Formats: sequence, structure tokens, C-alpha cells
Amino acid sequence: MNQHSPTPAVSLDDIRAAADRIAAHSIRTPLLESPRVNGWLGFRLLVKCENLQHTGSFKLRGATNAVMSLPDSVTDVVAYSSGNHAQAVARAASRRGMRAVIVMPEDAPALKIEGTRAYGAEIVTYDRYTESREEIGGNIAAERNAELIRPFEDVRVIAGQGTIGLEIAAQCAELGVAPQHVISCCGGGGLIAGVSLAVTSRMPATKVWAAEPEGFDDTIRSLESGKIVSVDPASRSICDAVVTPSPGETTFAINRTTLAGGFAVSDELVLQVMATAFKHLKLVIEPGGAVALAAALDGRLPSGTDCAVAVASGGNVDPQMFARALVAGPLF
Amino acid sequence: MNQHSPTPAVSLDDIRAAADRIAAHSIRTPLLESPRVNGWLGFRLLVKCENLQHTGSFKLRGATNAVMSLPDSVTDVVAYSSGNHAQAVARAASRRGMRAVIVMPEDAPALKIEGTRAYGAEIVTYDRYTESREEIGGNIAAERNAELIRPFEDVRVIAGQGTIGLEIAAQCAELGVAPQHVISCCGGGGLIAGVSLAVTSRMPATKVWAAEPEGFDDTIRSLESGKIVSVDPASRSICDAVVTPSPGETTFAINRTTLAGGFAVSDELVLQVMATAFKHLKLVIEPGGAVALAAALDGRLPSGTDCAVAVASGGNVDPQMFARALVAGPLF
Repeated sequence: MNQHSPTPAVSLDDIRAAADRIAAHSIRTPLLESPRVNGWLGFRLLVKCENLQHTGSFKLRGATNAVMSLPDSVTDVVAYSSGNHAQAVARAASRRGMRAVIVMPEDAPALKIEGTRAYGAEIVTYDRYTESREEIGGNIAAERNAELIRPFEDVRVIAGQGTIGLEIAAQCAELGVAPQHVISCCGGGGLIAGVSLAVTSRMPATKVWAAEPEGFDDTIRSLESGKIVSVDPASRSICDAVVTPSPGETTFAINRTTLAGGFAVSDELVLQVMATAFKHLKLVIEPGGAVALAAALDGRLPSGTDCAVAVASGGNVDPQMFARALVAGPLF
Repeated sequence: MNQHSPTPAVSLDDIRAAADRIAAHSIRTPLLESPRVNGWLGFRLLVKCENLQHTGSFKLRGATNAVMSLPDSVTDVVAYSSGNHAQAVARAASRRGMRAVIVMPEDAPALKIEGTRAYGAEIVTYDRYTESREEIGGNIAAERNAELIRPFEDVRVIAGQGTIGLEIAAQCAELGVAPQHVISCCGGGGLIAGVSLAVTSRMPATKVWAAEPEGFDDTIRSLESGKIVSVDPASRSICDAVVTPSPGETTFAINRTTLAGGFAVSDELVLQVMATAFKHLKLVIEPGGAVALAAALDGRLPSGTDCAVAVASGGNVDPQMFARALVAGPLF
């Protein structure tokens, strides 16, 4: 299987097939809203709660679709991840009785390392700022004859994340609403590539927007310049799940055709939005999982918005970081 | 309407009618689970997430059913509540264009007072330990010719809360599971009266259990002694939503026929369970809303349990109290 094709086609049929493949291993997450948030915003904001997905993030979908697509001859998988893809691959592998080795940065949240181990994976740590996870993961895959499941540059992963878009379209139809906008966070771009493919296929009038942490707005700037650009290597953010240095080739080839644009949000706003979700939605959302909600609550969407959807992509946050959010306090 | 009938009949038809009446004003809350919680427990635990209900608690259901049942001639409603019924009545009244006065203890969580005001109600405070909220509420109702919506001694309220039981039965059927046990918290007993009526009607093999804070185990002791008993007036608990001194006559008349028994849980356990829900379920649950989950996670259910449901009844917790839970830490 060639995962390096420069313009891979992920079709709506691929996403539908992924939905069937992962159905028994994941949940259809709820689409929630708060009357008080809606009143404060002046429009209806629906939150797609992937923080409530098994393993605490959307990553379960793509990892499960990839692992469940493998031939029975595969006995070992390898992945590199700051933690959410890690837990997702570990769980998917355990469901198929495969061994998993996960390469994680040594400063990954403790909760994510513990969760990955709890799902039965072997963990190898590295220094996020000086070592190459791609190289470490590639070497382990070669040594062990294992299948490497990349976090976003993999059409099976993109198709799996796209199932969120199918569910958003179906749940909006059940509610009788047609959202003008869907906002999703963006790290390497796998989530938003899948979501935007599904959403723009099912709801052609809906615009899809990327939300990124300030300093990690590589997809936004790549969209503006028409080619892939990278972030300043000195950039730092608390949004550990989405601090990818540059868009993937595969994901950017999709996103440049499907996205309307993007919004960069500050760490301070993210903390306040986590506190707002605590207060009004009763949801635990991790920093990276809150950036789309942050863009929506910060008024970044075009004026005239009546209804929008924000993807809350994960909830794997250490208590110390959550306590920081509670101290930062809600927006209202 | 006589709300003081000693043995009021709340039928399955009343609960079905309530479900129709509140459908446009409430949500069907999700029934969630965590693979890691299930693995740790050794059985499947489904959590009915009423913390995700509008206004942040199940109380919206009963209050809405009561308010929507009123004749158009009623223009004012009154309620007394530690905060969840308060917000629920305030919101239901605002949806019908009625004025609401809510009598709240002066030590109610700030979040609940703010929420009640945000839904447009006038608030009157009292001292929880020296004044009678029933007397204050009754006087205001008489002065203003307003309808008093009691928090649990009201068949319309009990029927509204019972809609949770209907949903549990339907959602379990969709999952293809038949839970042996359902656990719900119990204050005055309105929630568990409604839930137990619906659950035992729809799933006759399922046992329903009450969970109460230690020191406020009045329903458990009343069930054991066969008559209504009260708690020690010196009792204190952080579970503000369920610290009722004794069961209601109406609710106890139901609960003595429907419940299998009950479990009392400590404040310390409740804090640990709130932290466990934060870590593994990504849910914000308030102390009183966590007592049923606490009983389940503490191994109180009979051995041989394969599947159980716990109602997480509310999520309206101040950040200071939630920070205490994070410090207490999760059970695993």
C-alpha cells in the first residue's frame, strides 16, 4: 500500500466504508448545545463531542479504520503520536490481537502515556524538539516487520476521521438544521481533511474552517500562500494534540480544495474556552480539542451566522492543566 | 389539582405524556460508557448523562412537564430549590412567558444562583438550616396568586423525571443489552420514583437502587424501616443537590414498591468519582450527581453483575469544588 501518493483520492465511498468498519469499535458521539451559550453568541452552536469518543478523542476512528483494514498476516503495528493517536492505535491493535509499539514525546501529558500503556502498547519515548519521530517509527517498523500507522498521512486514517463529517450531516438533518459553518481543529490536517470531504459532499452550502493555535497556524498560512509552509521551530503551545510543524502533503492536497479558511487562537483564549465548556456544557475538553470552539466563541465566524458546528476533538487533559483553565475562568 | 394525595398514581401513560410534552424543550441525553472503566469494574457500566441536559441537570424534565401542564391563566410560578430545580423552573417558565420567583438557600453554589438569574427568575434567599423553604415558598405563592412547583412532591414532576427511565430502556434496547441494575441518586425521591416506575414497567427483570450521601440516607433507612424517617439535622454533605431531610410522602409511596434497596456513599468517595469521571468519561459531574456512579464504582452492586446503568444526574458544580475533586484524584 503506497501511503505517499501526492494526491490520494479519499472518496465519500471510502468514508462510508470506514463508517461500517469502525461501527462496532466506536460510538456515534452526541451533538450537543447549550441554550445559554447560544443566547450569548446570538446563533446556534452545535458541538460535536469527540472528547466523549472511546479513548477520549476522534483519533480512534482513523486508527481503527486503518488497523481493521490490515490483512490478517500483519501481527505488529507501530505509530508515533503525542498521545491521542497513540491511545487509538493501541486500542485498535488490542481489539485485533496485534502487538503495538508507540513512539511518544517524553513531554506528552501523563494521562496520554498512561492510557496508551493501559491499552496494552509498548511505549518508546523521544525528544519532541531534537529527534525525528518519523525516523524512529520507521526504524522500528523495519526492524519488527510492523505496519506503520501514520497519524494523518494515511488515506485510511483520513477516511476514518471523515466519519465524523457523515455523522454531523446526519445529526443536523435529524435536528432539521443546515449549519452554514463547520469548524474543526487542525494539526497535520487529517481530521479536517476527512470532515471537510464528508461535510462538503453531504452539505454543499456549508463552509468548513480550520482552527489552529497561534504559532502553529501552518495550514492557515499554507492555504493563504497556496503551498505548504512550516511553523517557526521556536513556537510553543499548550495545545499538544495539534502542534504539528507543517501540513501533510496528502492532507493539504485535500484541504486546499475543501476549506474556506482558518482562524488562529491564543493559549489564553483556549484556557478560557475550556472553562466555558466546563461551566456551560459540562464537558472536559483538552487544549487542542478546544481550539475550534475557541474560534466560534471568539466571534471569528462571518456575521450573519445562524447555525454552526464546532468539533470538540478530544478530552485527554491532565488535572494540572484543567486546573489552569478553571483559574483562567469562563468567557461568561 | 391536589398535590397532597397520599398515594398518587403516576402511570406509565403519565410518563409517556410527559415525554411528548417536554420533547421540544429538552434533549435525549446520551448513554455513555468507558472501555477502561468497564475493564476495571469487570462489568459494563452505562452512564445516563443528565449532566448534559439543558440547565445541567435532570430537573429540567420534571419542571418543564409541570410548567407546560399549567393552564394559560397561570402567569406566575414559584419554586424552592438548592439550585437545579431552580434553574429548571426558571427556564421552563421563561419558555412559556411566565414570571418565576425562586426560593434558594443562601449557601447554594454560586453557579446555580447565577444560572437561575440568567434564565430570568427573581431570587429570594433563605437560611437552609433555620428557615422553612416550604413556608417561604407557600407565602409567596399565596401573595402573588402563583402556582407552586414543588421539587419532588408533585406528580407532574415525578412523571417528567420518569422520562429518563423510558430513555434508558429504549437506549439499552438499541444497544442490545438488558441491564440487571439501574442506580440513581435520591434526594426527595422524585427522580428515582419516576425512573423506577418507568424502568420496572419496561424492564421488569431490572432492579432499581437508590444512592444517597452518608448522613442523608433517609430513603435507605425509610425503606428498611417501612416508614418515613428523617436524617440527623446536624448532618452535612458536599452533595448539595440531594441533601433532603426526609423522603416525600408521594415519592416514598412509590419508591417503597419499586426499589430494591440503596447504598450510602461518603463525600470523599464522591470527590474521587468526580475525578474518575473527569479522567475516563470526560464529563463534569457535580457532587450530588456523582453518588450513583460512586456506588457503582465502589462495588456495591450484587456480585454477578454483567451490565448496569448509573444516572449522572447533574453537572452544576463550582470550579472550587471541582478543583477539590481533581486534588482528591481518580479511583484508577
